[in-house]
Amino acid sequence: MSANSMNGTATGRLTGVGTGPGDPELMTLKAVRALAAADVVAHFAKRGSPSNARAIAQAHLRPGVIELPLLYPVTTELPHRSDAYKDAITGFYEEAAAAVAAHLDAGRSVCVLSEGDPLFYGSYMHLHVRLATRYATEVIPGVTAMSGCWSAVGLPLAQGEDVLMVLPGTMDEAELARRLADADAAVIMKVGRNLGRIRRALAKAGRLEGAIYVERGTMDASRTLPLSEVDGDATPYLSLVLTPGWSARP
Amino acid sequence: MSANSMNGTATGRLTGVGTGPGDPELMTLKAVRALAAADVVAHFAKRGSPSNARAIAQAHLRPGVIELPLLYPVTTELPHRSDAYKDAITGFYEEAAAAVAAHLDAGRSVCVLSEGDPLFYGSYMHLHVRLATRYATEVIPGVTAMSGCWSAVGLPLAQGEDVLMVLPGTMDEAELARRLADADAAVIMKVGRNLGRIRRALAKAGRLEGAIYVERGTMDASRTLPLSEVDGDATPYLSLVLTPGWSARP
Repeated sequence: MSANSMNGTATGRLTGVGTGPGDPELMTLKAVRALAAADVVAHFAKRGSPSNARAIAQAHLRPGVIELPLLYPVTTELPHRSDAYKDAITGFYEEAAAAVAAHLDAGRSVCVLSEGDPLFYGSYMHLHVRLATRYATEVIPGVTAMSGCWSAVGLPLAQGEDVLMVLPGTMDEAELARRLADADAAVIMKVGRNLGRIRRALAKAGRLEGAIYVERGTMDASRTLPLSEVDGDATPYLSLVLTPGWSARP
Repeated sequence: MSANSMNGTATGRLTGVGTGPGDPELMTLKAVRALAAADVVAHFAKRGSPSNARAIAQAHLRPGVIELPLLYPVTTELPHRSDAYKDAITGFYEEAAAAVAAHLDAGRSVCVLSEGDPLFYGSYMHLHVRLATRYATEVIPGVTAMSGCWSAVGLPLAQGEDVLMVLPGTMDEAELARRLADADAAVIMKVGRNLGRIRRALAKAGRLEGAIYVERGTMDASRTLPLSEVDGDATPYLSLVLTPGWSARP
């Protein structure tokens, strides 16, 4: 898989590294070893707020390693489905891929940190699709945020022949209710401002009872309670809603 | 959470330990540390075939640790939805829980190994629901088999507002096709003898193109190919089918 650049230097290896859901102890042995050997560690972040993935992996960064922060453009004024937003985000991923490629072309190995699992709703995949055909690439899977959450709560999620759905909380209320009624187990992501709508959709689907709200998963300040007891229609925190399946357990 | 048994000895701690999908390097730091401190390591297996989870964790078992194999009863002659089968399996889980409880009551810490993630389609959860209310219990999440598979293939699975479904391959063909047509991304588990039916359901849903067959995920002898190129209607191997979402990527 290894390729050579025009000046004859072997190009570096690209590695997508899953850091797991938040607790640094939930990093894999493989992720830790990859970071110990990396020339460059790249991480996505919003301008002004530190990268979660970097915070998780911090203890395993090699002293002197080159860090490459990939800072999302400020797009708060753009509607998320507008062409202007898509252009800004696409341009950003192109630039980020070029910045990583420059290190790979110079023969440096690059680890790209990704909270949770790199190919499961992670930013890393935007680099992967742009670079994996051109450079030797490896993806190190990680524990997902959802696994971290249901384990912290000790909530058996799905068993046997359960159908599990992962649903975005941004979905239209009726559509969300329809899908929840059609699932044995469900994980609702992107809760935030959508909490009120999610609560109504769960009630409409007859699934409010049993739904668990988990805030900040495996972080230090995590909080868990039945969704029916959560006040308000929005939450500022990184959070998930879990609807366990497994009604007919042996 | 800690409890005391009647003779005053502190009871041991129960830990469900996810070993990840197969590559021992994909164990978490937390799992490795828990095993190093365990008095007893329990693992589920079929009689005559070694436990996968134990094979993954083998290098991290403490010399002299007490091993507690939990051997599934032979039920090949029983239909899976029969009462006789359910009785045999329920009885087995009750006995397994009692065997683990005996060690906990004697003050010994017990780690129960679980391939992948313990609360995601894992046998561990049958012990969890029987013991977690009575003993101090912790669940250490693991990398799931499906994350291991899509990472080994380098296949971005789901992004942004994609709906992901995890579906059992045992499902009726029309029902499987209906659900596949309603998903952006899908993971089909329990492939084995159901391969032919799964292929037809994917074709009916217009999702055969792009579907990837992954055999033995992150094991040494893994094999990956487009499902449309897989011969036959059954496979003896541990395998998954992945249908990626993410059609409209920026």
